[in-house]
Amino acid sequence: MEHATEILPILFIVYVAAQLGAEIAQRLRMPAVVGEIAAGCLVGPSILGWVEVGESLEVLAEIGAVILLFSVGLETRIAELKKVGRVATAVGTAGVILPFVLGAVWASLSGFNTPKAMFVAAAFVATSAGITARVLQDMGVLSRTESRVILGAAIIDDILAMLLLGVVTSLQGNGNVAVLPLLLVLLQAIAFVVLIAMLGAPVMRRSSLMLEAPINPHSPLTISLALCLGLAAAASSLGLAAIIGAFLAGMVAAETQQQRTLEKQLQPIVALIVPFFFVVTGAKVDLGRLGSVSVIGTLIVITALAIVGKLVGCGLSALSLGRRPALIVGVGMIPRGEVGIVVASLGQQMHVFGGRLYAIIIAMALLTSVVAPPVLSQLLADRSAEQR
Amino acid sequence: MEHATEILPILFIVYVAAQLGAEIAQRLRMPAVVGEIAAGCLVGPSILGWVEVGESLEVLAEIGAVILLFSVGLETRIAELKKVGRVATAVGTAGVILPFVLGAVWASLSGFNTPKAMFVAAAFVATSAGITARVLQDMGVLSRTESRVILGAAIIDDILAMLLLGVVTSLQGNGNVAVLPLLLVLLQAIAFVVLIAMLGAPVMRRSSLMLEAPINPHSPLTISLALCLGLAAAASSLGLAAIIGAFLAGMVAAETQQQRTLEKQLQPIVALIVPFFFVVTGAKVDLGRLGSVSVIGTLIVITALAIVGKLVGCGLSALSLGRRPALIVGVGMIPRGEVGIVVASLGQQMHVFGGRLYAIIIAMALLTSVVAPPVLSQLLADRSAEQR
Repeated sequence: MEHATEILPILFIVYVAAQLGAEIAQRLRMPAVVGEIAAGCLVGPSILGWVEVGESLEVLAEIGAVILLFSVGLETRIAELKKVGRVATAVGTAGVILPFVLGAVWASLSGFNTPKAMFVAAAFVATSAGITARVLQDMGVLSRTESRVILGAAIIDDILAMLLLGVVTSLQGNGNVAVLPLLLVLLQAIAFVVLIAMLGAPVMRRSSLMLEAPINPHSPLTISLALCLGLAAAASSLGLAAIIGAFLAGMVAAETQQQRTLEKQLQPIVALIVPFFFVVTGAKVDLGRLGSVSVIGTLIVITALAIVGKLVGCGLSALSLGRRPALIVGVGMIPRGEVGIVVASLGQQMHVFGGRLYAIIIAMALLTSVVAPPVLSQLLADRSAEQR
Repeated sequence: MEHATEILPILFIVYVAAQLGAEIAQRLRMPAVVGEIAAGCLVGPSILGWVEVGESLEVLAEIGAVILLFSVGLETRIAELKKVGRVATAVGTAGVILPFVLGAVWASLSGFNTPKAMFVAAAFVATSAGITARVLQDMGVLSRTESRVILGAAIIDDILAMLLLGVVTSLQGNGNVAVLPLLLVLLQAIAFVVLIAMLGAPVMRRSSLMLEAPINPHSPLTISLALCLGLAAAASSLGLAAIIGAFLAGMVAAETQQQRTLEKQLQPIVALIVPFFFVVTGAKVDLGRLGSVSVIGTLIVITALAIVGKLVGCGLSALSLGRRPALIVGVGMIPRGEVGIVVASLGQQMHVFGGRLYAIIIAMALLTSVVAPPVLSQLLADRSAEQR
C-alpha cells in the first residue's frame, strides 16, 4: 500500500541471506564476509534475481559500511596508530604506486592513449578498508601491529588515491593538470585527518562528562553516532571515502571514558546494518557480463595485476615487521571493493572506457574482495598458532 | 562521488535535529517525540528546507517504525494482552465506528456523494500505534492495563480499518462491494494475527535453544530481527500495517528465554533508527498548503472531529477500567500518523478528493500525532502520582 513498505520483503531476503551465508561460510571455516558476499551474488540479479540494488539498498549498504568502520575505529587507539605511522605511510604509498604503474602499463599495452590508460590505472589503486576490517574484527586481532598498519595505510592510500583521481580526471579534459586546486584538495584532506586525529582525542577526553549531560538515556551513544554521521559526511564532501570519516569518528570516540560501553552498544547496530553492505556488494556482481572466454581472460589478467600490485607494494614496505606480518599486510590491502567500483563508474560516465571494461573492473574489484578474506583469515590463524 | 554518499549530510542533519528536538522537548517537560516531530517540521521543506523526504528517508523511517513496534512488542506478554482482549476489542471497534460516522457526516455536509464521503471518512479511522507506543515506552508504563488495552485495540483497529478501506475503495468503482474477496482478506488478516499470537509463543519457547545454535555471536538478536522483518513484510502483504507484524514478532520473541538480552540489545538499534521515523513524520508537514483562513477553519473542524471520535468512542468503551484509565486509552488512540497519510494518498491517487482536502487530511493526521503525546504523558504522570 505505502511505497516504503514495498521494500520490507527485500530487506527480509537480504538479511536472511546474509545470516545463512555467514553461517555456512563459518561452518566451512571461511570468514563470514565471504558467505555474505556470496549470498548477495546468489539473491542478486545474476542468479536468483530476487533483489535489485536500488537507491534504498545502496543507502543502507553505505550506512552499513560507515557503521562498520566506526566500530573498527572504536577499537583503535590513536596513540597505537601513531606508533606505526611510518610503516603505514610507506605501505599506503607503495600500495598506490605499484598497482597504478602495473595498471597503466597494462592499459597502454591494450591500446589506450596515456591519459585514458592513467584513468584505467586509477581504478587499480584504492584499497577498500571495509572488508579487511571486518575480517580483522571478527578474528579479534584489531590490536595487532599488522592490523594497525593496514588501517593506517588505508587512510594514506585513500588520500593518495583521491589525489590521483583528481589528476587523471583533469587529464581527460584538456590534458592540463591544474596543480593549485589539486594541492588545495590534498591539503584539505590531510588537514581534516590530522586535525581530527590530533584534536579529537583531547577534546573528547575533556568532554566525557558532557556526553552524559543530555536527558536521553542512550546519550553517549547518540552523540557518538551523530559524530560518526557528521565526520562521514565531512570526509565525503572533501572527496575522501565516507568510511574514512567514520573510522576517524570511531577513533575519537574511543578516547572517551565511555569507550567500553559504546563498543558494547554498537554491536547490535553492527549486527543489524553491516550485512546490508556485504550482501549489496555481492548483488552487484554481474555474472552475465562475464560470459565470453576473452572477457574472462582479461579479468584474470587484471585481477592478477591488482593482487600482485598490492601484495608486492604493500608487503615489501612492511618487511620491517617480519615476513609473516608483511604478508598479512599485503593480503589485507588487496580488496578494492566499492572504491574501485566508484572509480570505474566515473570512468564509464566520462566515456574513458566502455561497458565491457567497466564490467571487468567491477568484477576485479569484487574478486579481490572475495579472494582476500579467506587467505587473510588463514594467515592470521597460522600466526596466532605460531605465537602460542 | 558515489550516489549513496550524498545522503550522509542529510542523515546527519536528521539525526542531530532529532536529538536536539528530543532534548529541548524533555527539558520543557514534553515527550521526546514531540520534539523530534517538531524538529522534522523545522528542517523539512516548510521552514528551513534542509531535508527533502525522498525514497531513502522514507525507507529509513519505515524501518524505524518497524523496529519501534518490535521493541514495544518485546515488552508485551501475549498472556497479558489476552487478559484485556474483550476491552481492547470494544475499544478498537468503537474507535473505528465513531470516527467513521463523524467523518462521513462531515463529508456529506461538505457536498461529497455517499461513496466519496465514505472514502474521506476512512481516513479518519485508523490509529497509528507508533507515536503512543513510544510515549508509553519512554514513560516505562507499557505493562499497565491501559497500555495493553491501547496496543490490543490498535491491532483490532488496524484490521477493521483495512477492511473498511477495502469496502470504500470498491464502492468508488461500480458501487458494488465484492463481499467474498473482502471476507477473504478479513479472514486472512485475522488468521495471521491469531496464528502468530497462538502458535508463536509455544514455538519460540521450545526453540529457545535453537536460537543459540548459529556461530554468529549475536545470534538470538539476528534471528529475532529476521523474524521482525519477515512478519512486517507478511503483515504488509496481507494489507495490514507493517508495524502490526513487527509488534507481533516482538511479542513472539518476548516468549523466549533470551527476552531480557534481546530487550537490552535492541536499545541501541532503537536509538539509531527510530528518530528517523519521527523526524520524517514532521518533515512531511506542508505548512505552505495551510495558508488561508478557510483551510485552517476546515482543518480545525476535521481535527476536532478526529479527536472527539477516538476520545469518545474509545474512552467510553474503556470505562470499565475506571475514568482516568479510560481517558488515557481515549487519548492514546488519537494519533492517526502515517496510516491516515496513506489513506489520504490513496484517495488523491483515485481522484476521490483534490489537493486541498489531501493536504488538510495529512495535516489532521499529523496534528493528532502532535497533540496527543503531551496530553497523554501528563495524564500518565498524574495517574502515577495518584497511585503512589
